[in-house]
Amino acid sequence: MQKIRVTIWNEFRHEKKVPAVAEIYPEGLHVALGNGLAAEDLEIKYAALDDPEQGLPDDVLASTDVLLWWGHCAHGEVRDDIVAKVHKRVLEGMGLIVLHSGHMSKIFQKVTGCSGTLKWREIGERARLWNIAPTHPITQGIGEYFEIPHEEMYGEYFDIPKDGNIIFIAHFAGGNVFRSGVTFERGFGKIFYFQPGHETYPVYYQEEVLKVIGNAIRWAKPVFFRELSCPNYPAIDKVGE
Amino acid sequence: MQKIRVTIWNEFRHEKKVPAVAEIYPEGLHVALGNGLAAEDLEIKYAALDDPEQGLPDDVLASTDVLLWWGHCAHGEVRDDIVAKVHKRVLEGMGLIVLHSGHMSKIFQKVTGCSGTLKWREIGERARLWNIAPTHPITQGIGEYFEIPHEEMYGEYFDIPKDGNIIFIAHFAGGNVFRSGVTFERGFGKIFYFQPGHETYPVYYQEEVLKVIGNAIRWAKPVFFRELSCPNYPAIDKVGE
Amino acid sequence: MQKIRVTIWNEFRHEKKVPAVAEIYPEGLHVALGNGLAAEDLEIKYAALDDPEQGLPDDVLASTDVLLWWGHCAHGEVRDDIVAKVHKRVLEGMGLIVLHSGHMSKIFQKVTGCSGTLKWREIGERARLWNIAPTHPITQGIGEYFEIPHEEMYGEYFDIPKDGNIIFIAHFAGGNVFRSGVTFERGFGKIFYFQPGHETYPVYYQEEVLKVIGNAIRWAKPVFFRELSCPNYPAIDKVGE
Amino acid sequence: MQKIRVTIWNEFRHEKKVPAVAEIYPEGLHVALGNGLAAEDLEIKYAALDDPEQGLPDDVLASTDVLLWWGHCAHGEVRDDIVAKVHKRVLEGMGLIVLHSGHMSKIFQKVTGCSGTLKWREIGERARLWNIAPTHPITQGIGEYFEIPHEEMYGEYFDIPKDGNIIFIAHFAGGNVFRSGVTFERGFGKIFYFQPGHETYPVYYQEEVLKVIGNAIRWAKPVFFRELSCPNYPAIDKVGE
Repeated sequence: MQKIRVTIWNEFRHEKKVPAVAEIYPEGLHVALGNGLAAEDLEIKYAALDDPEQGLPDDVLASTDVLLWWGHCAHGEVRDDIVAKVHKRVLEGMGLIVLHSGHMSKIFQKVTGCSGTLKWREIGERARLWNIAPTHPITQGIGEYFEIPHEEMYGEYFDIPKDGNIIFIAHFAGGNVFRSGVTFERGFGKIFYFQPGHETYPVYYQEEVLKVIGNAIRWAKPVFFRELSCPNYPAIDKVGE
Repeated sequence: MQKIRVTIWNEFRHEKKVPAVAEIYPEGLHVALGNGLAAEDLEIKYAALDDPEQGLPDDVLASTDVLLWWGHCAHGEVRDDIVAKVHKRVLEGMGLIVLHSGHMSKIFQKVTGCSGTLKWREIGERARLWNIAPTHPITQGIGEYFEIPHEEMYGEYFDIPKDGNIIFIAHFAGGNVFRSGVTFERGFGKIFYFQPGHETYPVYYQEEVLKVIGNAIRWAKPVFFRELSCPNYPAIDKVGE
Repeated sequence: MQKIRVTIWNEFRHEKKVPAVAEIYPEGLHVALGNGLAAEDLEIKYAALDDPEQGLPDDVLASTDVLLWWGHCAHGEVRDDIVAKVHKRVLEGMGLIVLHSGHMSKIFQKVTGCSGTLKWREIGERARLWNIAPTHPITQGIGEYFEIPHEEMYGEYFDIPKDGNIIFIAHFAGGNVFRSGVTFERGFGKIFYFQPGHETYPVYYQEEVLKVIGNAIRWAKPVFFRELSCPNYPAIDKVGE
Repeated sequence: MQKIRVTIWNEFRHEKKVPAVAEIYPEGLHVALGNGLAAEDLEIKYAALDDPEQGLPDDVLASTDVLLWWGHCAHGEVRDDIVAKVHKRVLEGMGLIVLHSGHMSKIFQKVTGCSGTLKWREIGERARLWNIAPTHPITQGIGEYFEIPHEEMYGEYFDIPKDGNIIFIAHFAGGNVFRSGVTFERGFGKIFYFQPGHETYPVYYQEEVLKVIGNAIRWAKPVFFRELSCPNYPAIDKVGE
C-alpha cells in the first residue's frame, strides 16, 4: 500500500504567544491534528511559517500529496513565491485542505479568485454542522449533523465561487448560518475548505472534526500529478483551403 | 438613461510591431472594437498597456462599469498591483470580459484560480461556435451556431473552474473542440471569457462577434458596487450559557 | 409595455375546510398573494384545483408567462396529464414558482427529478432567511436577512439536484437549516422554489416575502417560447469516405 | 470482495427485427456489452423489454447496484409503474447508466426533468470524444480523446440540466458538437449518460467505449441504499415563546 503523504502546515504563532492557546495545543495545533489523524495509510509531516523556507522548501512540496493549511494572523507574511509554488502544485494534482481562518489565506484566495470575506464573532458559541451531502466521501461516518460546543462564528455572506460543492451548512447559536464545508477543483487538484478550528477551543481533538478531515485527506488524494502546459497542437483533420 | 461605462483595455503591441496586424487594426483592435460596439447606452473609453499607469489609473478604474481585456505577448509586463486593483474592482461589482489570448492574462488567472492553459494552433482554420445557452442574455440574436472563417484554434483541455456557465462550444476545422464562451461570478462581479479575436484576422469586425460582446457588456453591468469586508458581527439570538 | 401574464394556482382546500386558515385567507391564499403582488406590469389570474380542468385548461396555460404553484394535501389528485402539460410549457419557456409545501408536488418532482423530501415541524417557530446571493435579481431590495415570526420548519436534508442556485439559507429557531430559496433551469424555463408560506400563518401578507416573489416573477419571465424537438439535421461539413 | 451487481437492460427489438443489427449483435447488444464488461468484481445479469415484468420484477431491481439502460424505438412501451420503481431505486442509491438513444427514455427524462431532445443524423460518420474531465474516475485509462469510426450523430442543443458534470465533448465529422458524457446525482444515486452505441455499428465492441462504461459502473456503485422520507422532526433547540 502506498501511503498518502500529508503535510500539515501551521502558522504556529498563537501557540507561542498566547498562553490560553498553548495550554490547548502545547506542541502546536498541527501536531495535535497529526496525532489525531494518525493512521496506517498516512505519512504525516509538519511544517510551520517560521521554519526555513516557511516550511515548504521544494523537496517538501514535491513529496506532498495532500497539504493542510492553518493560518490566521500572519497571512500577509507568507511569501508570494511560496504561494505561487503551492498553487502550481495544486493545479498539478496535490490536494489542499484549508482550515478555519485560512479562508483569507493567500492560497485560498488564489484558488478561489474570491476574497474569502465573511462575518465573524468570537464568543465561543455552539456550532451545529448539518450534513448536506450524505453520499460524499467526506461525510461518511458522520450522521445528519454534529455539534461543536464552542467555536468562533463564521457567517454568510461568504465570498466564494459557485462551483463549491456544499458539504456542510452550519448554524451558530447566535443566529448566523454558514457554508462551513465546501469542495472545489482547480486544475488536477482537489480542495476542501472546512470551517472548524478556532485556536482557543479544543476543536481539533473532537472526533467528528478529525473524522471529516481524515475523510477529506483520502478524498483529496491526487489522481495523478501532471504539469499543465499550453502546447502547439497539430491539426488532426485535414483543413480545406 | 444611465450609460454603461465601458473601458476597452488592449495590450496594443502587435498592432505597432507587425504590419499584417496594423493593416487590419490600424488604430488598434481596441478602437476597432469600440467602433463596432458603439451604441447609445454605452460610454466607451480606451486604455493600453503603454499608457500612464498601464492605462488604468485609479480614476479610470473607479469610473468603469465593464472592463474588456485583450492581452497576449506582454501578460508578464502587467504590474501585479494593477492586477490586484482590477481584481478588487471586479469583486466589488465591475464586469470583466476577457477576450481571446487573455486566457492566460494575470487577471483571468486571478479570478479563476486556474492556469488557463489550453491547446493552440495558428493555421487560420474555420471556427464554428455552437450556442449551448439559448436563453442566456449573451446569446440573444445569435442562432444555433455561427462561424468565423479564419481563427486561431484554442482546444481542450482548457483549465478553468467548473462553475463556468458554458455559453458556446466551438469546433475548429482541424479537429479540436473548446468551451469558447464561459461565464463566471466572483464577489459581486460578472465575468465572461470569449475565445474569438486572434490579431491576424479581422474577427472584431464580424457582426456575430460584436453582437456577443455587446450582449455580454449589458449582461455584465454591475448590479451594484459594494466593498467586501470581514465585519465583527454581534449575536442576533441570545446565546445560552 | 407588455404585461407579464401570471397565473396563481392554489390547491384551495385548507381555506375551505379549516376555519383558522379561512380566517387568515378568506378568499384563498392565491387571492391574498395576487392582491399583494398587484403591479402595473403584471396581469394576474387565479386557478384552483377544483376549477374545471383543475384550473389549467389549455387556453389558460397557453396564456401564462409565469405560474405560481401552492399545493399541499392534494398533490396526488392533480392529474398526470395536466402535470405533463405544465411541464411541457415550462420546458418551452414558462416560468414556474413553487411555493412552500409544493416541494412534493408532482410538478416540482418532475422538473427536479428528485423526491423533494425534507424534515418538517409545525410549531410556529421563527424562520430567518439569509441572503446568499446578493446580486441575484430575486434578492434586490432584501437586506442580508429577513425573519418570518411564525413558520413551519422545513429542514435538511432536502432532496434536490445540485444545479440549484442557492438564493436563501434559512435557520429555524428549533435548530434546523434549509436551502429555502433555490433556482433551477429546465429546457427554456426558469424555476424558483421558495420555502415560506405555511397556511396557518399570515406569511403571504409579509412585505419581504411578497418582494421576493415579485422579484422572482420578473426574473422567471420567459425569454421566449419555443418548442423542443429532435430534428434530423443535415451534415454541415463534407463527410469523407 | 463484494461484487457489484450490474443489470444490463436492453429494449432488444432492433436485434430481432433488423438483420443488419442481428449480424452485429446476434445475442442482443446487452449480451455483447456484458461479455465486454465481464470482470471479477462484477456480477452481470440481463433484462429485456419483452421479459416478464419488462425485465425488472421487484427482486431483480432490489438486487441491482448499477443499472444500464439501452432503449430506442419502444420508450413509450415501458410501463410508467416500472419507471417509477426504477426512479425510486435510483433515488435510494442505485447507479444508472443511460446509453445512446436512452436520452429520450422515460427514466432519463424522469431523472433530468428535461426532454432530452437533441439533433441527430444517421450517416455513419466519425465521432471524436474529447476528455474534458481528466481526473474523473470515468476517464481513467482514456487519453485526451478517442474516436469511433462510425456512429450516429447526436448534436447540440441537448436539453439537459446544468448540474451535469461534463465528461466528454464530442465532435462529429459532419460538423456538430455534443456533450456526449455527462454525470448527474439524484437523491443518493449517481447517473451517467453516455452517447455512443448506435445499434447499426459495432460500437460496444470497441475497447475505449467498454473502458468508459466499466469505469462508470465502478463510479456509480451505491455508497449506500437508504429510503428517502419526510420525517416530522422534533426541535433540537428550545423555541422561545
